[in-house]
Amino acid sequence: MTDPAGELTIRPFVDDDWPQVWAVIEPVLRAGETFPFSPELDEEQAYQLWVTIPTATWIAEDEHLGLVGSYYLKPNQPRLGDHVCNCGYIVAEPARGRGIGGALCRHSQRMAPQFGFRAMQYNLVVATNESAIHTWQRNGMTVVGRLPGAFRHPIHGHVDALIMYRSL
Amino acid sequence: MTDPAGELTIRPFVDDDWPQVWAVIEPVLRAGETFPFSPELDEEQAYQLWVTIPTATWIAEDEHLGLVGSYYLKPNQPRLGDHVCNCGYIVAEPARGRGIGGALCRHSQRMAPQFGFRAMQYNLVVATNESAIHTWQRNGMTVVGRLPGAFRHPIHGHVDALIMYRSL
Repeated sequence: MTDPAGELTIRPFVDDDWPQVWAVIEPVLRAGETFPFSPELDEEQAYQLWVTIPTATWIAEDEHLGLVGSYYLKPNQPRLGDHVCNCGYIVAEPARGRGIGGALCRHSQRMAPQFGFRAMQYNLVVATNESAIHTWQRNGMTVVGRLPGAFRHPIHGHVDALIMYRSL
Repeated sequence: MTDPAGELTIRPFVDDDWPQVWAVIEPVLRAGETFPFSPELDEEQAYQLWVTIPTATWIAEDEHLGLVGSYYLKPNQPRLGDHVCNCGYIVAEPARGRGIGGALCRHSQRMAPQFGFRAMQYNLVVATNESAIHTWQRNGMTVVGRLPGAFRHPIHGHVDALIMYRSL
């Protein structure tokens, strides 16, 4: 973490970004501590989840460090609930603690209304992921519910998950 | 509602049941008051949602009235959250008020552990659907969260939705 962080640019994902996005998200998904997806998923499945299924995907580039994060935006429910969006955010391990998660969160809250979304919901925020919870709370997300033991953490076993929500 | 209700049997769905299941669920899905699925969905999409995607589907038969209800059971999240199940229940309009919804709910709570599920979650219980909420509460489901305006009701507009949960 001795690299000086440079200016952060958040821009739409293009397919040429995928190898770098995969390099950033693969270790996080493999760790299985924050997302429910199978830790054994392959690259094609990850592309489906991160790029194909979502409405849009963005990447964050640091002018010195390169691609340091990404997030996707998609409807959280079918038609009659599709005005509420859902996002998934990942920040590269070596770039953490620099506010990039918060920057991605704020960016998604600005972008979501442009796609017609009126609220944002996270369905399964792992209760042990305290730094993420604080980041989302600092950015206007409220814990609206707690699901006892709803996430199987590789280290901690069955842990609670939070539902977070905000109107946009 | 003058028909005498007979003994209720709940058994696994078989494909020959589909025309009757569709007849029961179509008006409910078209009404758009309780499920988020598009009210314009076609029969094939409904079959996907009700039969293909779920882990299992059951039907309730009244000895006099025939097929009066159905529910599906499926994981609520991918791998690391797939020990929590989700169900969707529909009771035929003419058979309501006879406790069939409650019977389906209790049946699903007995079946779910047989498929390895340890908890049950409903993601979007429309707040205006009070009789359903009471039925689920009487059967051990707890409201763990409220999502402001998360459902677009055809009559009432944006209404709240509840998240309900219980361990099994």
